[in-house]
Amino acid sequence: MEKGRLFVVSGPSGVGKGAICHRLIKDRDLRFSVSMTTRKPREGEKHGEDYYFISHEEFQEIRNANGFLEHAEVYGNFYGTPCLEIQKTLSSGKDVLLDIDTQGALNVKKFCSEAIFIFILPPSKEELKRRIKARGTETEESLKTRLSAAINEISFLGNYDYCVVNDDLDIAAAQAGAIIEAERVRVSDDAEEVNAIIEKYKEGM
Amino acid sequence: MEKGRLFVVSGPSGVGKGAICHRLIKDRDLRFSVSMTTRKPREGEKHGEDYYFISHEEFQEIRNANGFLEHAEVYGNFYGTPCLEIQKTLSSGKDVLLDIDTQGALNVKKFCSEAIFIFILPPSKEELKRRIKARGTETEESLKTRLSAAINEISFLGNYDYCVVNDDLDIAAAQAGAIIEAERVRVSDDAEEVNAIIEKYKEGM
Repeated sequence: MEKGRLFVVSGPSGVGKGAICHRLIKDRDLRFSVSMTTRKPREGEKHGEDYYFISHEEFQEIRNANGFLEHAEVYGNFYGTPCLEIQKTLSSGKDVLLDIDTQGALNVKKFCSEAIFIFILPPSKEELKRRIKARGTETEESLKTRLSAAINEISFLGNYDYCVVNDDLDIAAAQAGAIIEAERVRVSDDAEEVNAIIEKYKEGM
Repeated sequence: MEKGRLFVVSGPSGVGKGAICHRLIKDRDLRFSVSMTTRKPREGEKHGEDYYFISHEEFQEIRNANGFLEHAEVYGNFYGTPCLEIQKTLSSGKDVLLDIDTQGALNVKKFCSEAIFIFILPPSKEELKRRIKARGTETEESLKTRLSAAINEISFLGNYDYCVVNDDLDIAAAQAGAIIEAERVRVSDDAEEVNAIIEKYKEGM
């Protein structure tokens, strides 16, 4: 069976990555990578669907074994993106979408070099500022911090395969969708796989 | 100004390449590469649109200067795909579509290494046979010749970036269209170009 493809989406906060990813999941037959967390499930949240809810000990174990692509602590709870889970989904032939920051994306390159990297850019610096403000950044100081974090993310653009500018959400989601459709018909780098296709046409000639 | 992209489409005869290319030209803002010929224009044909109508002497001159990607003689008339014409269109920032056989495509790689190569496959060997027959191949002998030419074309699949299976024309044209849209948002290999984008977001921070 053909292995699934891993699509990695990054972009500065406020760029509208989440909205684009949700469109892709809805329209393009992709699986979201499910994260692990040590926090308690909220009402309605399902284990294995919203998150894998695990203990602090389990989390530490996985972290010590370098089993996370990225992890973070938020208000005393831990969150992590598990490698193994992604590999399982890919092995089952399904394509996976991973919304991850540039640091995490660089880690992905190490364990899945064939992953496809998509960067989402804001239409301009001014619009980036406006969107970060609209998210409710109160002080000039915290706006500066968020902006410089955003610029730092953007400086990794050269590590990505594709760059989608999110000015209009419909257009940006269509472009990201086109990337996914195109990658699904890419000719494999694996010469054996290509030869198997050619042989199918030669047989019995 | 950004240079245009060159999309090269190949595939065995009878695969429906022409129909796909016409959809792309109609829907995706691409220019067809115009060929040169020594034959006289038919009624309604326009110089520079359907063909460049040139003399035998002009044709020889261009051929001697290796100015054709490919050329062929059909019923005493010469046909050729001129490099210079394609380069002019690309320089003007327009994307070009080139419908060419695998030998010609290999030549394209030499003069435009960044070209994007798309191969159109029939859904099966049986369907390929059926389509070649439907084109009015009379004898078992000429069917064999055409089939083996088709198989020879397919054996070059590994030199292509993408492979679209033409089972349903709408689906195949949509996939080819997605390839074009995706390539238009590909991150440039040119580090300077990428840095120029990043600098736009940094300015005045």
